[in-house]
Amino acid sequence: MRNSFGEAVRITLFGESHGERIGCVLDGIAPGVRIDEDAIAYEMKRRQGNPVISTARREPDEVRIVSGVYNGYTEGTPVTILMENRDVRSKDYVNPADHPRPGHADYTGNIKYRGFEDPRGGGHFSGRLTAPIVAAGAICKSALEQKGIRIGSHILEIAGIREEGYDLLHPEIQIWNGEFPVHNEEIREKMIEAILDAKSEKDSVGGIIETAVLGVPAGIGEPWFDSLESELAHILFSIPACKGAEFGSGAEFARIKGSEANDPFRYNAGKIETVTNHNGGINGGISNGMPIVFRTVFKPTPSIGKPQMTLERSSGERKELEIHGRHDPCIVPRALPVQEAVSAIVLTDLLTRVHGNLWLGETL
Amino acid sequence: MRNSFGEAVRITLFGESHGERIGCVLDGIAPGVRIDEDAIAYEMKRRQGNPVISTARREPDEVRIVSGVYNGYTEGTPVTILMENRDVRSKDYVNPADHPRPGHADYTGNIKYRGFEDPRGGGHFSGRLTAPIVAAGAICKSALEQKGIRIGSHILEIAGIREEGYDLLHPEIQIWNGEFPVHNEEIREKMIEAILDAKSEKDSVGGIIETAVLGVPAGIGEPWFDSLESELAHILFSIPACKGAEFGSGAEFARIKGSEANDPFRYNAGKIETVTNHNGGINGGISNGMPIVFRTVFKPTPSIGKPQMTLERSSGERKELEIHGRHDPCIVPRALPVQEAVSAIVLTDLLTRVHGNLWLGETL
Amino acid sequence: MRNSFGEAVRITLFGESHGERIGCVLDGIAPGVRIDEDAIAYEMKRRQGNPVISTARREPDEVRIVSGVYNGYTEGTPVTILMENRDVRSKDYVNPADHPRPGHADYTGNIKYRGFEDPRGGGHFSGRLTAPIVAAGAICKSALEQKGIRIGSHILEIAGIREEGYDLLHPEIQIWNGEFPVHNEEIREKMIEAILDAKSEKDSVGGIIETAVLGVPAGIGEPWFDSLESELAHILFSIPACKGAEFGSGAEFARIKGSEANDPFRYNAGKIETVTNHNGGINGGISNGMPIVFRTVFKPTPSIGKPQMTLERSSGERKELEIHGRHDPCIVPRALPVQEAVSAIVLTDLLTRVHGNLWLGETL
Amino acid sequence: MRNSFGEAVRITLFGESHGERIGCVLDGIAPGVRIDEDAIAYEMKRRQGNPVISTARREPDEVRIVSGVYNGYTEGTPVTILMENRDVRSKDYVNPADHPRPGHADYTGNIKYRGFEDPRGGGHFSGRLTAPIVAAGAICKSALEQKGIRIGSHILEIAGIREEGYDLLHPEIQIWNGEFPVHNEEIREKMIEAILDAKSEKDSVGGIIETAVLGVPAGIGEPWFDSLESELAHILFSIPACKGAEFGSGAEFARIKGSEANDPFRYNAGKIETVTNHNGGINGGISNGMPIVFRTVFKPTPSIGKPQMTLERSSGERKELEIHGRHDPCIVPRALPVQEAVSAIVLTDLLTRVHGNLWLGETL
Repeated sequence: MRNSFGEAVRITLFGESHGERIGCVLDGIAPGVRIDEDAIAYEMKRRQGNPVISTARREPDEVRIVSGVYNGYTEGTPVTILMENRDVRSKDYVNPADHPRPGHADYTGNIKYRGFEDPRGGGHFSGRLTAPIVAAGAICKSALEQKGIRIGSHILEIAGIREEGYDLLHPEIQIWNGEFPVHNEEIREKMIEAILDAKSEKDSVGGIIETAVLGVPAGIGEPWFDSLESELAHILFSIPACKGAEFGSGAEFARIKGSEANDPFRYNAGKIETVTNHNGGINGGISNGMPIVFRTVFKPTPSIGKPQMTLERSSGERKELEIHGRHDPCIVPRALPVQEAVSAIVLTDLLTRVHGNLWLGETL
Repeated sequence: MRNSFGEAVRITLFGESHGERIGCVLDGIAPGVRIDEDAIAYEMKRRQGNPVISTARREPDEVRIVSGVYNGYTEGTPVTILMENRDVRSKDYVNPADHPRPGHADYTGNIKYRGFEDPRGGGHFSGRLTAPIVAAGAICKSALEQKGIRIGSHILEIAGIREEGYDLLHPEIQIWNGEFPVHNEEIREKMIEAILDAKSEKDSVGGIIETAVLGVPAGIGEPWFDSLESELAHILFSIPACKGAEFGSGAEFARIKGSEANDPFRYNAGKIETVTNHNGGINGGISNGMPIVFRTVFKPTPSIGKPQMTLERSSGERKELEIHGRHDPCIVPRALPVQEAVSAIVLTDLLTRVHGNLWLGETL
Repeated sequence: MRNSFGEAVRITLFGESHGERIGCVLDGIAPGVRIDEDAIAYEMKRRQGNPVISTARREPDEVRIVSGVYNGYTEGTPVTILMENRDVRSKDYVNPADHPRPGHADYTGNIKYRGFEDPRGGGHFSGRLTAPIVAAGAICKSALEQKGIRIGSHILEIAGIREEGYDLLHPEIQIWNGEFPVHNEEIREKMIEAILDAKSEKDSVGGIIETAVLGVPAGIGEPWFDSLESELAHILFSIPACKGAEFGSGAEFARIKGSEANDPFRYNAGKIETVTNHNGGINGGISNGMPIVFRTVFKPTPSIGKPQMTLERSSGERKELEIHGRHDPCIVPRALPVQEAVSAIVLTDLLTRVHGNLWLGETL
Repeated sequence: MRNSFGEAVRITLFGESHGERIGCVLDGIAPGVRIDEDAIAYEMKRRQGNPVISTARREPDEVRIVSGVYNGYTEGTPVTILMENRDVRSKDYVNPADHPRPGHADYTGNIKYRGFEDPRGGGHFSGRLTAPIVAAGAICKSALEQKGIRIGSHILEIAGIREEGYDLLHPEIQIWNGEFPVHNEEIREKMIEAILDAKSEKDSVGGIIETAVLGVPAGIGEPWFDSLESELAHILFSIPACKGAEFGSGAEFARIKGSEANDPFRYNAGKIETVTNHNGGINGGISNGMPIVFRTVFKPTPSIGKPQMTLERSSGERKELEIHGRHDPCIVPRALPVQEAVSAIVLTDLLTRVHGNLWLGETL
C-alpha cells in the first residue's frame, strides 16, 4: 500500500525533506488511548541523537497532533501528526538528478518519478520522514506499555565493534533509556570513537541494532503472509539504510542442529514457557509468549563529505562529487528509536486484529 | 491480509496438510500469460527434492488449474491452483496440542485457533502449503522470463559449510537448474554429507540461500512501506523456517565504511550502472537496474526423530517426545524453489503496479 | 481488491461458468464457527429457484468445503468452498466476442481481457459464481444468527407489480423461508404470472428486493469510507444485474422534510431506540441498533430468447441474435438469497473489525 | 479501510469539524499531474454554495498542499491537503452525546467511540470534511480532463420538484459550471423557492443529483467485487446524507423488459457504441465506452432549527431540542461537487489499475 502500512491500525506517511510539512496519519487506533506528550517528546529527542555524533541539522521537531485527539485521549478517528520543516538549506543540494549521490535514492527516485520529484535533501526519501513515524510509534508504544508490553533495544555493533547480544531468554532491556544504549561502557566508548573517526574522515560507518519486545501474549501474528516475522520485517526494511533483519538466533541457525534450535516447552510458575529461546519468541509466525528478539543491519550513511565519484548524466562523464550538506557519520543511534517505533506500530496492528478496535483504549 | 499477499497481483493461500485439498488463488495476473506446464512441473519437482536427503512423504503434487486459464493462457481472471492430499498418514501425528512439538506451531496455533485447528501434520502451518505457492510462482516466473527477468539461487551455506557467495556485480546464476545448486563440487559433497549425518542422528541442520534477480529495470518498488526490500522480506519470512533476510552486502554493511559501501554510478555501453553492487540492486527501496541479490537464513527443520523434551499440557509434566513422521533433515534445498517462487510473485506485483494490469501478457 | 472483498473477513471468488470448478475462499472467519450443512444446503436450494420460473440448467450445486473446517467447526484458517461444473452445454454459446449479447459483459469482458477470456456461458461473469457466494454467506449467516442477528428479505416488486414495503420500524421478516417470498398472496400470483408471460414471450423482467437485518448492535460501520451503507452497497452492486440500492426511506427522502425524516430517540424498555426509522437503522454510516433496511433494483435478465440485434464485430454489420441457452425470465427470486449472503458476509467483516477475530466463534 | 479508499490511488481523510485542521492524503497519483490552482479554487467555491440558501458558516477554505507537489506538478509521492478550521463557534454545540440530534451521528458516534469523540460540530462526521475531498477530487478531475474524461452533474430533484433527467445516450453536461445546475429555469426557481420555504420554517429538504461521466474508455472496472458500480457506490455512500444510488435506468429497470433494457451494439463512425444506454455505460461491472450515468438520493439535512424531540440520555426523559448552529436547509447543491469529486477519485484509481501508476502524468 505504498505510503501506508497496516490493516486494523494503519500509518500513512507523507512529506518531503524541504517541503512545507511532513507528517503521518495513524488510523484505526482505539478510542481512549491517552496521549502522553512527554513520552512523545522523549522519543523525538532520542531520534534527534547526540549533536556530537549526529547531523548538524537541528529541527525543533515540534509535533502537532491536529486531528483524532480530544481532551488528551484518542477519539478513535484518524490521528494526524504534523511537523514543519524550518531549518532548511536547500542550496546545499544541487541537481542530484544529474549527479546522483551514490547509495542514495537520487537516481532511482528520478527514474521512478520521472524528474518530477523534489530533489532537495533527498525529498520524500529523506530520513527526516522518520520523525513523524517516531511520534506515531510513541503513541502506540505508551498504549502498549499500559497493556504490559515493553519494547527496548541496544546497539549491538558499530563499525565492527560488537558487544554481547541479548540473552534471548532474558533480554536486558532495562537500559533502553540511554541516548546511545550500549551495555558495556568500554565498548560504548570504542563505538563512539569509531564514529568520530569516521566523521573526521568525512566518512561513515554502519552497525546492528538488537530489539526485544516483552509481554506479547501467545497467539499474535497471522499465517501465512502476515506472520510476525513478515510484518516486522516489512516495516523494519522501510527504515532507510536497513539492509538486514533476523529473528532469534538468526544467522546462527545455519550452524546449529535442530535438537539445539528447538526450544522445549515447560511450565514455570503456572505459565507455559520455553526452556531456551532460539526462535526469538515466534513459532510458525505466531508469538509464543516468550521475549521477541530481532536484529537489523544498517548500512553506513550514504551521505559522506569525502569526495566520491559519480556520473554526470547530462554529459555522460564521471565526475567527482563532494556532498556539503549536514549528515550523520553513523545513523545507527538515531535509527534505534525508529526501529522501536515501527515495532510498536506493527504490534498494535496485529493485537488489534485479534482483539478488535476497542481493545487498546481506556473506558470512561 | 492474513493468507493473502500482494496488491495489483495477489496470492491467497489455503489448505491443511491432511485436509482434502490445498491450493491458492492468484488474482490480478494479466490476461495472455502463457501457462508453461513444463515449467510448473519442473519447479514442483525441484520442490520435492532428492529422496535421499528429503522427506519420505511422496505426494504426486499434481497441479490442477481449475480457473482463470483458457486455451493455455491466463484469462485475466483469478487463477486457482488445486492439489490433492493423498499420501496422508494421519496416525503419525498424535495430539500435538497436548504435546506440542518444540520449534513448531503446534502450541502457538493451538492458542491462536483455540483448539479448533486441524493438528494433523501441522495443519495449516505445514510446509506442504508451499507446493501451491511454487506452482503460482512458476507462472509468474515464466512470465517474467519473457520480459527478460530471471531468478536464480544457490545454497550458500548448510550446517556451517559455506561456499563463496555471488559476485554481487555478476551473480553466477547459470547453475540454477541443479537440484542441489552449489557451485563448488567439493563443498556440495560436504553439505550433502552433513545432511546425511544429521539424518542418521535423527537430527536436522539449517542453512543459507542466496538468490539473484537479473533484468529488473530501474524504478521498481514503492516508498515508503512497499520498498523492494520490505516487500521481498515480507513474503520471504512467510516461508516456514525462514529466520533471516539480508540484501546486497547484508551484515557486512556493519563493518565497512560509506566510502566503500556506496556504489558509484557510471555509463557502460550507453546504460547507467554502478561500479560496485554492495546495495544489491536497490537504492532507497527502489531497483536501480543492477542485479538484485539477497540471502535468507533457514533454521534446522524442527521435526526431528531424536527424542526431545516437551510439555504434556494436560498433566503439566515434562515428557519425552519422539516424532515418528517423515521429515527433512534439511529443508534448505526444498526451500530454494519456494524462495524463487515468492520472489517471482512479489516482483510481478510490483511491476504490475507500475505498468498496469495488462503489461505482462501477450496480445492476440 | 478485484475478486476479493472485506478486511477482517474477506471473500475471494474464482471460476468460470464452464470451467472445471468455481468456488471461493473465506478468510478471517473466527475459529469455532459451527458449520451447519443443512443451512448451507437450504440456501443453495433457495438460490436454485423454482424450475417453473427459473433456468433449466440444473447444477447439483454440491458444496465441498476443502479447507478451514475440521470436525464440523471452522478452524480460523481460510475456508475454501469448491463446486464442480457439470451440466455444461458449451455449444450453446457461440462466439460471443464477435456477436456480443446486449446487456451482457461479452463485449466489455472481451475488451478488458483482450480476447483471452473464456467466453462460454459468460465465463467469469456468469451468475453461476453466485453459488459459492451463497455458500460462504450461509456460513456467516448461521454464525450471525447465533449472535442474535437475523437477515430476511421479500420481493418488493417485479415487472411493475409491487407489494407493500416493510414497516421500517418492524420489518416483517418472518416469511424469509419461502422460495418466492411475497407477503401478499394475490400480488405473489400476479408477479409469477408476469414472469411466466415474459418467459412465454422469450423476454425477461426485473424487480426490487427489500432486505432487513435485525439485531445488529449500535456502533457498527466505519467512517468515512467504510460506512455501513458504503460497504453494503459495494457488495450488493457486485451481484450481477443489480443497478440500484437505497437505504431506509431511500428515494422518498427527496420528497420529505427534515422534521419528518429525522428519527427522534427515546427509551423503550431500557433500550435506546428511534420513534421512526426513516434512516433504516443507520446514522452517519454507523448502525444505531434499529432494523437495517435496504432495497436493490435488479434489471431484467439480459439473456433472452427473443431475437435481438447486435453487432457482428468481424464484419461490422448489425446482425440478429437469438440466444439459445437456458435462462431465467426473472433473476429476482434467485438474487434474493445472494443478497442475503453478501449482507451476511459484509456484516461479519464489520463486526469482526470491532470485536476482533475470535468474537464470532464458540469456545471449547 | 476505514478513512482510506482506493487501491492504486488512495485517499485518506482526517479531521474534526472544530479541530485544528482537516485534510487528506492522496497517494498513488502519478508524477507529472499539473496542479491547476484555479480548478481547485473553483471547485471549493462550488462546494461553499450560495450564501442565500446555504449555511452561514464561512470558512475561507484555503487549500494548502503541503507535500507531494513540486514546481506545480505532482511528484508521484503522497499529496497532502490541509485546511484550517477558523470560523468555529463551539458554544453552539452543547452536549450532543446526552441530547443526540435526530438523524445525526451524535448517538452512533458516541457508542462507537465510547465518549472519547470530539462532539463539537459533528466532530469527525461533519460535512466539513468534504472540503478536502473536493480539493483532492479537483486534482483528479483536471488530470482526467486532460485524458478526455469529463464529469458533470445537475440537480434532478429537490423537495419533490423534478426536472427531466439526462438523455442517457447524450447527457447534457454542458451546464456543469453553474452554482445551482438545473437546466430548466422555471424548475430551478421552484427548487430555490422550496429551499427558502424550508429555511423560513427552520426545516430542510432533500433531493436527487444526476451525474454523467463522458470519455471513459471501455474496459474499466474490476470483476467481481470492484465493479464500476460497486466502486462508485461505495464512495458515493460515504458522502454524508447519501441514502440511495442507481445507475442507468435505475429503478425503471423494475418496470421494463429485457428486450428494451438490453442496449444493442452497433458501429458508429468506426467506433462500437450502443443504440440505447439503459445500462448507463456499464455492462457486467465494466465500462462499455458509453456515457456513465448515475443518480444519488440525499436526505434532508438533519440539522434543523425547528424544535424536535430527542432523548436526554442522562435522565432518560424525552426533551425538546432546538439546534442553534448554522445549517443548510438543503445540502443537495453543495453535495453535487462532492459527488463529482469522489467520482473523479474512484475513476482515477480504476484507470490507474489498468494503465499503471505513470499513465496519468505528463512527461518532462
